[in-house]
Amino acid sequence: MAEKGVTPRAEDYSRWYTDVVQKTELADYSPVRGCMVIRPYGYTLWENVRDGLDRRFKETGHVNAYFPLFIPMSFLQKEAEHVEGFAPELAVVTHGGGKELDEPLVVRPTSETIIGHMYSQWIKSYRDLPLLINQWANVVRWEMRTRLFLRTTEFLWQEGHTAHATEQEAVEETIRMLGVYTDFAVNDAAIPVIQGRKSEREKFAGAVNSYTIEAMMGNGWALQSGTSHFLGQNFAKAFDIKFLNQSNELDWAWTTSWGVSTRFVGAIIMAHGDDQGLILPPKLAPYQAVVVPIWRKDNERAGVMEYGERVAQTLKAAGIRVKVDGREELSAGFKFNDWEMRGVPLRIEVGPRDVEQNAVVFARRDIPGKEGKTFGVSVDGVAQATQDMLDTIQAAMLERATTFREANTRTARSYDEFKQILEGEGGFIRVHWAGTGEDEDRIKEETKATIRCFPFDGQGDGGTCFYTGKPAKEVAIFARAY
Amino acid sequence: MAEKGVTPRAEDYSRWYTDVVQKTELADYSPVRGCMVIRPYGYTLWENVRDGLDRRFKETGHVNAYFPLFIPMSFLQKEAEHVEGFAPELAVVTHGGGKELDEPLVVRPTSETIIGHMYSQWIKSYRDLPLLINQWANVVRWEMRTRLFLRTTEFLWQEGHTAHATEQEAVEETIRMLGVYTDFAVNDAAIPVIQGRKSEREKFAGAVNSYTIEAMMGNGWALQSGTSHFLGQNFAKAFDIKFLNQSNELDWAWTTSWGVSTRFVGAIIMAHGDDQGLILPPKLAPYQAVVVPIWRKDNERAGVMEYGERVAQTLKAAGIRVKVDGREELSAGFKFNDWEMRGVPLRIEVGPRDVEQNAVVFARRDIPGKEGKTFGVSVDGVAQATQDMLDTIQAAMLERATTFREANTRTARSYDEFKQILEGEGGFIRVHWAGTGEDEDRIKEETKATIRCFPFDGQGDGGTCFYTGKPAKEVAIFARAY
Repeated sequence: MAEKGVTPRAEDYSRWYTDVVQKTELADYSPVRGCMVIRPYGYTLWENVRDGLDRRFKETGHVNAYFPLFIPMSFLQKEAEHVEGFAPELAVVTHGGGKELDEPLVVRPTSETIIGHMYSQWIKSYRDLPLLINQWANVVRWEMRTRLFLRTTEFLWQEGHTAHATEQEAVEETIRMLGVYTDFAVNDAAIPVIQGRKSEREKFAGAVNSYTIEAMMGNGWALQSGTSHFLGQNFAKAFDIKFLNQSNELDWAWTTSWGVSTRFVGAIIMAHGDDQGLILPPKLAPYQAVVVPIWRKDNERAGVMEYGERVAQTLKAAGIRVKVDGREELSAGFKFNDWEMRGVPLRIEVGPRDVEQNAVVFARRDIPGKEGKTFGVSVDGVAQATQDMLDTIQAAMLERATTFREANTRTARSYDEFKQILEGEGGFIRVHWAGTGEDEDRIKEETKATIRCFPFDGQGDGGTCFYTGKPAKEVAIFARAY
Repeated sequence: MAEKGVTPRAEDYSRWYTDVVQKTELADYSPVRGCMVIRPYGYTLWENVRDGLDRRFKETGHVNAYFPLFIPMSFLQKEAEHVEGFAPELAVVTHGGGKELDEPLVVRPTSETIIGHMYSQWIKSYRDLPLLINQWANVVRWEMRTRLFLRTTEFLWQEGHTAHATEQEAVEETIRMLGVYTDFAVNDAAIPVIQGRKSEREKFAGAVNSYTIEAMMGNGWALQSGTSHFLGQNFAKAFDIKFLNQSNELDWAWTTSWGVSTRFVGAIIMAHGDDQGLILPPKLAPYQAVVVPIWRKDNERAGVMEYGERVAQTLKAAGIRVKVDGREELSAGFKFNDWEMRGVPLRIEVGPRDVEQNAVVFARRDIPGKEGKTFGVSVDGVAQATQDMLDTIQAAMLERATTFREANTRTARSYDEFKQILEGEGGFIRVHWAGTGEDEDRIKEETKATIRCFPFDGQGDGGTCFYTGKPAKEVAIFARAY
C-alpha cells in the first residue's frame, strides 16, 4: 500500500524508476544476486504482453514448443562468435544428483544451439520447411550491474527460432517478425518504436544482421525493446541443419531468431510514467478501470458500494478488466493517489449524487485534474462509454509519446554539435554516418552514446559523416541507452 | 510423419507409450541427460492443460507471479525434512560470470523456500492474508531413471503457494485446490481421478499432510496426477512468516502448496490411448477435428478441397479447433491412420458425393470402424453437430475410463490375495489398513505396490487390516505406480 509518492523524475530519474517498480508492487528484489521477483501486478502486465505477442505469432503461422534449460558447454563452442559473445555471462551447473558432471551444463542464455541441434534431426527435406517455432522461457545471463526488469540475471522472454529453405525467405521472416514487434509496441503498448538495423558492434553474437525496435524513455534515453536476427547459415553449419532441396541436393538451412523479454515492461514504465507513477496503456493494463465508491456518512456506504459493484459487473460482462476498491479504512483521496500511482488508465468515481442521477464520473490517468474528468456519464451505456474512453486514452498515449520522441530527436552535423546535444537536452541524435567500429567505440567511450540503429525510415541520398567528415550513405540514430 | 504404427500395448506397454509420444511428435529426447524437448503438438496439449487450470485458479481468487530459478543452498537447509527429501535430486550452479560463487545456487526443485522468504517480507498483518499466489515455471530434479513426460530432470509445472491466518483456512485451501484439480481432471481430461490423503511415506518433504489425485493408466498402474499439501506452520517457522493477528499478537502464518506438472500429459496419454495411438479428450486436444478431403480423380480435388475448407471455416468461426489435411502426396487411408494415431477426437471426411449432397461424414476416434461413423451429416448446422459430437465423445471417454477403473479395482482381505491380484489382473487394490511405515516399505519391496492414497470416498466403519490382521480404521488403495 502506498504511503508516500515516488521520487520526482527531474530529481533522480533512476530513483524514480526504482520507486515506481517497487511501490506499485510490480517487482521486488530477491535474495538471489541479480534476480528479481515479479509480483502479481507486474506479472499480470507481463501476461498481457505475452498474450498480445503470442496471438500475433500464431496469426503468422508460428507454434510454441519447449527446449531444455540446460545446454552442454560444448554446444556453445560450435559457433565461434556465439560462444565469444556469451561466455562471460554464463551460469554453469557442475553438480547434479550429488555428483560432479562429466561435462558442465550451461543454463541457457539463449537457445540457438540446443534448438539448432534438434532442428538438425527434424529437418530432412524442403517439405519440413519452413519450421516456425517459438518458445516462452526463462534465460540466465550473469550481468554485473542489474536493474529491475531492464537487466536481471534471470529474465523471462520468448525466443522465436525459424528455419527456411532460402536466404530470401529467412530475411523476409526476420523483417516480418520485427514488424510484428512494431505492431505490438505501437498498437498495444502505445510506444512509437523506431525500426532499424543494428551496427556490427551491437549485433547478436553469431548473426549476419540484427534488427531492433528502439523506444525512447522519459529521460530521452533509448531502450532496445525487441530484436530480430538473420543468422544466415551460421548456425545451420555449426549444427549440421541440412535438407534435401527441390532439386534433390543437400543444402544448409537458413535460420532466424527473435526475442522480446520482461525488459519490455521497463519500456512501458519509462515511456509513459510521470511524477505520480505509472501510466499503463489500456490494452495491457492489469486493471483498465477502477471503480472508487465515495461516501461520507456511514448510511451512504451500502448504496454507493452496491451501485459501484453493479457498474463493475456491467463492465466485466463487456470484457473490461475492472476492480472495485471497497477498502473501508482508506479515504477516497488516498485511493485516488494509490490507483494513479499504479497507472490504472481510468478511474470511475461513484458518490451518493451519482447514484441519484444514475451516472458516474470518469477521471483519466493520462490527463491530471479537472481537465481529465467527465461528469455525469450515464450508467445506461456505461460499458460502451468506458470502452470508447479507453480507446481515446490508448490513442492519446501513443500520440503523446510520439510527440515527445519527435521533440527529443535532433540532428547533429558535427561531433561538437553531437556532444553539445548530449550534454544538453539529450534524446535521440540523427546523423550521417560513415565511421568504423573503432569510431563507434571511441564515441561510446567519450560520450556513452551508441548507435541504436540505422533506421528503416529516413535513409536518404547521403551526406557528410558527422564524425569522420567522409561521404556517408547511411543515417544512424545515436543515443544513450539502457 | 507416421510410417509405421505403434507397438501394441499387450506386447510391451512401456514401448507402446514411448512409441506414442515420439511418433505423434508430442516430445523427443534431447542431448541433455534426462531432459526432453516438448514438440509443438505436445506443447499445444500442455497449453490447453495450463489454460484449463489457470482459468480455475483465477476463478478461485489466485494470481500469478514469478520467483527466481536459483535458490541459495542455505535456504533449503532451513527446513530439515525438506532438505533431506530434495538434497539427492539437486542440480547445483557453482560458477557464474566466469567465477566460482561464494555460495552455490540450487536450481529450484520446488519453491517453498524462496517464496517463504519473500512472504516473510510481504506479510505483516492479517490484512495481508490470505495471500494466494501461483507460479508457472520450470523445475529441476536430478532423476536417475527418466521417462518422457512422466519423469524428466527438468519439467514444467505450476506451483501454488498460499498463506493464511488460521489453520482451518489453510486446510480448507488445501482441499479446495485438490477439488480444483479433480474438476479439471474429470471434466477437461476425462480422467476419473481418486482423491485422497497420502501416507506418511509418500507425503511431500516438509508437509503436515499431502493430498493427491490418483489416475488409473491403461495397464492398471496408478499415476499421481496432482498434489496439494498442507504445510502447517513448518515453512512459516523456517522462514519467519509472522503477522499481527486481529488481537494484535504476532503469529506464524499457515501455508499450503499444490502442483500439477507436464506429467499430466502422460496421464492423458495412458488413461485413454489404444493400440492405434493417442485418443485425446476434445476439451484439451490441439485439434478437435480434422477435415480430410477425399478424391480419386484429379478433377475432383479442387472441389472437395474448397468444400472442406469451407466446412473448416464454419467450425473455426464457432470456436472449434480444426485442421484441414490437404496434403497431396498422401492417400486418404494414410491420413486416416495418421490422425487416428495423433488422437484427434473427430475426423470429418468429405468426398465428391458429400459435396453433391451438401453433407459430411463424421468418424469418431474413440469408436473404431463403421460403428463410430455418422453418414450424411448436413453442412447446414455442421458447427452445432460437431460441437454436440465432441461433447458426446468427451462424455464417452470419461465413462469408458470410469468403467475401466471400476473393473480394475479389487478388494484384498489378505496379503496372499493381495499378491495374487498383483501378479494376475493388477489394477487398484482396496484394503483395510492398520500398518506402519515399515510395513508399507516391506510391501513395496516385495510387490512393488505402494499406498496411492487413503481415498476420501469409501472410508467405512473399519475392518481388519489385510496385512497385520489388526483392527483397521482406514481404507487404503494400493497399486503399482509410475
